[in-house]
Amino acid sequence: MNVLPIDTPAVLVDLNIAEKNIRDFQRYCDQHNLRLRPHIKTHKLPGLAQYQLAQGAVGFTCQKVSEAEAMVAGGAAGDILITYNILGAEKVARLRALSERFTLSVVADSQPVIDGLSVGFADAQQPLPVLIECNTGADRCGVSTADQAADLAAEVEASPGLRFAGLMTYPPIGQAGRVAEWLTAAIDLIESRGLKVEIVSSGGSPDMWQAHQMPVATEYRIGTYVYNDRSLVARGTCDMSDCALTVLATVVSVPAPNRAIIDAGSKVLTSDLLGLEGYGHVVGHGDVVIDQLSEEHGRLVSAAPIDLEVGQQVRIIPNHACVVSNMLDHVMLMRGDVIDRKERVSARGQVW
Amino acid sequence: MNVLPIDTPAVLVDLNIAEKNIRDFQRYCDQHNLRLRPHIKTHKLPGLAQYQLAQGAVGFTCQKVSEAEAMVAGGAAGDILITYNILGAEKVARLRALSERFTLSVVADSQPVIDGLSVGFADAQQPLPVLIECNTGADRCGVSTADQAADLAAEVEASPGLRFAGLMTYPPIGQAGRVAEWLTAAIDLIESRGLKVEIVSSGGSPDMWQAHQMPVATEYRIGTYVYNDRSLVARGTCDMSDCALTVLATVVSVPAPNRAIIDAGSKVLTSDLLGLEGYGHVVGHGDVVIDQLSEEHGRLVSAAPIDLEVGQQVRIIPNHACVVSNMLDHVMLMRGDVIDRKERVSARGQVW
Repeated sequence: MNVLPIDTPAVLVDLNIAEKNIRDFQRYCDQHNLRLRPHIKTHKLPGLAQYQLAQGAVGFTCQKVSEAEAMVAGGAAGDILITYNILGAEKVARLRALSERFTLSVVADSQPVIDGLSVGFADAQQPLPVLIECNTGADRCGVSTADQAADLAAEVEASPGLRFAGLMTYPPIGQAGRVAEWLTAAIDLIESRGLKVEIVSSGGSPDMWQAHQMPVATEYRIGTYVYNDRSLVARGTCDMSDCALTVLATVVSVPAPNRAIIDAGSKVLTSDLLGLEGYGHVVGHGDVVIDQLSEEHGRLVSAAPIDLEVGQQVRIIPNHACVVSNMLDHVMLMRGDVIDRKERVSARGQVW
Repeated sequence: MNVLPIDTPAVLVDLNIAEKNIRDFQRYCDQHNLRLRPHIKTHKLPGLAQYQLAQGAVGFTCQKVSEAEAMVAGGAAGDILITYNILGAEKVARLRALSERFTLSVVADSQPVIDGLSVGFADAQQPLPVLIECNTGADRCGVSTADQAADLAAEVEASPGLRFAGLMTYPPIGQAGRVAEWLTAAIDLIESRGLKVEIVSSGGSPDMWQAHQMPVATEYRIGTYVYNDRSLVARGTCDMSDCALTVLATVVSVPAPNRAIIDAGSKVLTSDLLGLEGYGHVVGHGDVVIDQLSEEHGRLVSAAPIDLEVGQQVRIIPNHACVVSNMLDHVMLMRGDVIDRKERVSARGQVW
């Protein structure tokens, strides 16, 4: 048995694959004149954010103020878009502090969010760029109509300390036409009212290779592509060999001919199914299903006698990489099977 | 709106409720002469482990060596049972180091596990007590038959540095009769071979109030009872008012009459469903379902117009408390609505 000298369970990131993923999609964006703004929520590592910037990303996306703080503290200083309604005086104050040292923009989809930002930035030297978040069909956040988008754009522009910078959407998967129609109508309406729509930000890993089919977007946000995962393999977005993040686990019990137990449970693999059967793909054991997770146990079952023994290490491609990289304090950075270094995941475990 | 001065999302633990939960079940165990050995995986807080010991627990249970290390480093020194097959020279060495300062026992369900422990403890001053893990129907780890249990018990007893201490099971829910029959057969067989079965360890929160129905067990392991959660309410084990852990979130968007978005997603509530509909109970909003989680967004929907507004705080009783307390670096300890203190969750994010 080939056993890596790594205590398990561990999250391994193959830098060779991650860097190739970054370069490949950057090349695609360059070919299509699309500005790439990677989402750091997937890796939460300043080192990879720096690599993304060095390859040509125009900046990066964060989902939380603490993620932005961790990136810049770790040396990844770029143009940061926080794609979240930031509420509360404390968070707005941290945003303000960050904006005085770095290029920053945010989103809003309601008057209370705009008002809170305006209070915090009223006496700022530079107005804070605010994008209006639009619900183009994913039914999460975002205004529902082009009219609402135009109204809020005007509200932003009229608010002390803020300036309207454009539109942002978290689009539904596979509906580029509908999304483009929605955004185009909003742009037309906003520009008819005399405001310029400088940025139109869309994104999403599942549709990444179709990003060029929606030219209305000026930039593309994407997170999972850096690691890929079983859900993107299932969608045909990538192959198993493109998956940079794996969980290394040890078989701790083979108590029955068709069952083995590993030391990776829901506290590392997470319960995210994303519509798939089982909690991950066991590399080299395509017949095995991870059918049940306890907190520290993963149960592997197979129709034929299971080809695993106690003490053996297995590698698992998780269903959803973005949540797995958030579970442990450290990831192990690899180059193939060679350990590069152990790295602290800097932006995890934070409240916000 | 009553807004707590706490940045969201946050994990709140009401110590009044948690301490009452600890006292109530301790009283039950005392009445039934059952030794209580709480599982610290739920809270991972040395302070609560100390409270459990002070109320009469005989020691505590850990699932990982790092949990035991964190508890004793935090001042909670008790008799520790690690209910896990510990494999690998590094983990066994840490176990050995811990055993030289604290009373420690472990489990095993196969020869390779016994062999690894024996190598690490061969020259120990005191032999390491080892319980044989028995599969009484939950089909996770554990030997399948009484014969196998007896064979491994003899192997442990014959191994340098180890001594056989008893049996341990993670039982299936609601099958006390079957579990008792299994264990009794194993005990009879092992004692017929001249070995003493000192400890018989069973457990589980769902069946906690029926623990006395299985007198063959000498001790009971239980974790979730300290916080309780929506899954235990659904099973009838406790009431909503017994739930000590809640997630405090802020409504960040109400983009449609029947939809609101909160700043708690799968990176704090987790995707654990445990057979329930929705990802948690929104306190005071029984009509609302958390129907979808993104990483940092929770989507709340309702049939009638949703009674929530942007900036409002909500409290959520999660489906599964044990995994939620593992998600953030800190929990906020409360006494009702009064903040007691912010506490670091000491045993989380560790590899093992």
